[in-house]
Amino acid sequence: MDYDRALAAAIDRLHEEGRYRTFIDIERRKGQFPNAVWKKPDGTEQDITVWCGNDYLGMGQHPVVLGAMHDALDATGAGSGGTRNISGTTVYHKALEGELADLHGKEAALVFTSAYIANDATLSTLPRLFPGLIIYSDELNHASMIEGIRRNGGAKRIFRHNDLAHLRELLEADDPAAPKLIAFESVYSMDGDFGPIEALVELAEEFGALTYLDEVHAVGMYGPRGGGVSEQLGIAHRVDIINGTLGKAFGVMGGYIAASARMCDAVRSYAPGFIFTTSIPPAVAAGAAASVRHLKTDQALRDLQQERAAVLKLRLKGLGLPIIDHGSHIVPVIVGDPVHTKKISDMLLSEFGIYVQPINFPTVPRGTERLRFTPSPVHDPKMMDALVHAMDALWSHCALNRAELAG
Amino acid sequence: MDYDRALAAAIDRLHEEGRYRTFIDIERRKGQFPNAVWKKPDGTEQDITVWCGNDYLGMGQHPVVLGAMHDALDATGAGSGGTRNISGTTVYHKALEGELADLHGKEAALVFTSAYIANDATLSTLPRLFPGLIIYSDELNHASMIEGIRRNGGAKRIFRHNDLAHLRELLEADDPAAPKLIAFESVYSMDGDFGPIEALVELAEEFGALTYLDEVHAVGMYGPRGGGVSEQLGIAHRVDIINGTLGKAFGVMGGYIAASARMCDAVRSYAPGFIFTTSIPPAVAAGAAASVRHLKTDQALRDLQQERAAVLKLRLKGLGLPIIDHGSHIVPVIVGDPVHTKKISDMLLSEFGIYVQPINFPTVPRGTERLRFTPSPVHDPKMMDALVHAMDALWSHCALNRAELAG
Repeated sequence: MDYDRALAAAIDRLHEEGRYRTFIDIERRKGQFPNAVWKKPDGTEQDITVWCGNDYLGMGQHPVVLGAMHDALDATGAGSGGTRNISGTTVYHKALEGELADLHGKEAALVFTSAYIANDATLSTLPRLFPGLIIYSDELNHASMIEGIRRNGGAKRIFRHNDLAHLRELLEADDPAAPKLIAFESVYSMDGDFGPIEALVELAEEFGALTYLDEVHAVGMYGPRGGGVSEQLGIAHRVDIINGTLGKAFGVMGGYIAASARMCDAVRSYAPGFIFTTSIPPAVAAGAAASVRHLKTDQALRDLQQERAAVLKLRLKGLGLPIIDHGSHIVPVIVGDPVHTKKISDMLLSEFGIYVQPINFPTVPRGTERLRFTPSPVHDPKMMDALVHAMDALWSHCALNRAELAG
Repeated sequence: MDYDRALAAAIDRLHEEGRYRTFIDIERRKGQFPNAVWKKPDGTEQDITVWCGNDYLGMGQHPVVLGAMHDALDATGAGSGGTRNISGTTVYHKALEGELADLHGKEAALVFTSAYIANDATLSTLPRLFPGLIIYSDELNHASMIEGIRRNGGAKRIFRHNDLAHLRELLEADDPAAPKLIAFESVYSMDGDFGPIEALVELAEEFGALTYLDEVHAVGMYGPRGGGVSEQLGIAHRVDIINGTLGKAFGVMGGYIAASARMCDAVRSYAPGFIFTTSIPPAVAAGAAASVRHLKTDQALRDLQQERAAVLKLRLKGLGLPIIDHGSHIVPVIVGDPVHTKKISDMLLSEFGIYVQPINFPTVPRGTERLRFTPSPVHDPKMMDALVHAMDALWSHCALNRAELAG
């Protein structure tokens, strides 16, 4: 067995399909977001503007977040020193879980090292808690949910994206007595469209199913206190498990679920991905808690993000560019080919100092390769001018279609 | 379906078996490790000494680590703002990976959010890179390796712990042409025993198998530069993939693999657990890199840890307590019953201010429930006196066996 040749072949496949990923080394400059410095492979540097980050509100440079992190470092040191069970539960972790439970109006919350592992660990553990559980999963759910649902080989049904009739069909075909769970997202991050949360919850109630809602691309940004779309709709109390991240709008790192005390206690006690891993550093927990707390009242930041997104969409539409607009804060521009997408991304970076990573399969379906812009409160009108002009110039230069590729 | 009753039943099972876990809320005090404050459920506080942490060398309070973290927070902010591919690769991540590749004498390293996910993501991805791969796994491998090996339903063989003859039997029974990987650890964390790395590597070479070595409880602590037991034995270059953590001896958080450039590139490109998750905060990467760099030269700290462990084992043996001693830094004292273990742990905490968490199934086999002490350079002789006296008093008080329970 020639292992090295097998590795080379696996990598070559990506090159051939034009979807080999090259990471861009950057350093954001605190106080100057979204500006950053790109360190090129040849060692030279270039100033850039980041247009593809998921620090959606710029909280990663907010003084309350950084202050809390500095303070925790000074008080308690760097790491937690253990798993949650073995010396790794600190007052910082407890305070963070308290903030999160409060945010979603739930009895409890459970913090994981990432929202990825929160999804994976929770969804793979639920079939152990509810033997015979059938999980109904939206076909566009995030990779971490798919991994969790697949992990233990439990029963699963995939329903077409946001298709309530299809979901109903699937629910009706199964044993009414079987335990059931419907898993979906509030904001699907690649198209920026919303899940029909209210209708899904109603369907779950009709069929006696639990609901699992991934609010990763909504927490901090939607709802009067940043509790996500479920808070905005006043429906959080009817959702059984809410999943969120501390690494996007909250600007730090980590993930969580919020649910009943009993649900959190059971997941805490049975999920290997929670039990057997070092807990997040106290400073990270402190920064995240400060961010969650701050965004419970800073509606102005949420409004500004929505305004910036609306303006960018309007301006790109005005140029006839094929954008997808579902009214969220995410602005995808479809290119539809991995090689073209990469090329435009490269040109934006090197010629205009605009950093937006190409999004290819498997993150999005083949043929829908795209640039995905994430305007935020820290992207000022001048930066937006620069982006719009660069896109206009490149679209003409590359003779790309306008509008017709939009989904 | 009564979901709430099912959850209650799952939790009750743990209570009945005496292995329901109660987390202790603590705050370590920087500069005063291993001292900490225990925040009791009633809100009052008590000073304690932590004897069960995995910040094995006290690096979580080291000035070079904290300085690097403060500096990174000031320079670049809190979170990374994205996945590694989408704006989340920073100069801090690249520098850390450079330190780690150098530490293990490998071409490359790949940082994950935890060593748990590094194991899980890598081991579940290798069968995709080497179709038909058979994984040979030591029966005492960590939960994260087991989860990774099980995830995609690939072929696996479990060999008895450290049993080379059994492993050889299994290897001989399989198709010589099939791709193979042997997965094992250098220090098994619950007994503190070592894997026979050299013999395992020789067996792998004989059968044309790859080797995957988890050095989570060894990096920073073994080898002249902290490269783990494989460095100590001068054998790292013959191990294909080395897995390590940044959350134990290095005192911060995160995990990694070190391997050939091609191996890292392929895992980077194919592992969902790497691709679809926000990268670690730059400040965490900076702190971890500083810690790795520092421990490449601080042999005195390693020596002191070994000395403290040897002294504690000698003293507990002197009392006739049933300790397990394989010559590593870990000091397990077998109690052999979950209820007794919990009771001793509770009494140590409340009466003596000594914090050592009970270790129960599934972390260790039933009947081998234990207290697991982790003496370190920051545990001074006075603290050790207090611990030894407390253990002596409790062992008499509880009329527990001495010695005969040791494994």
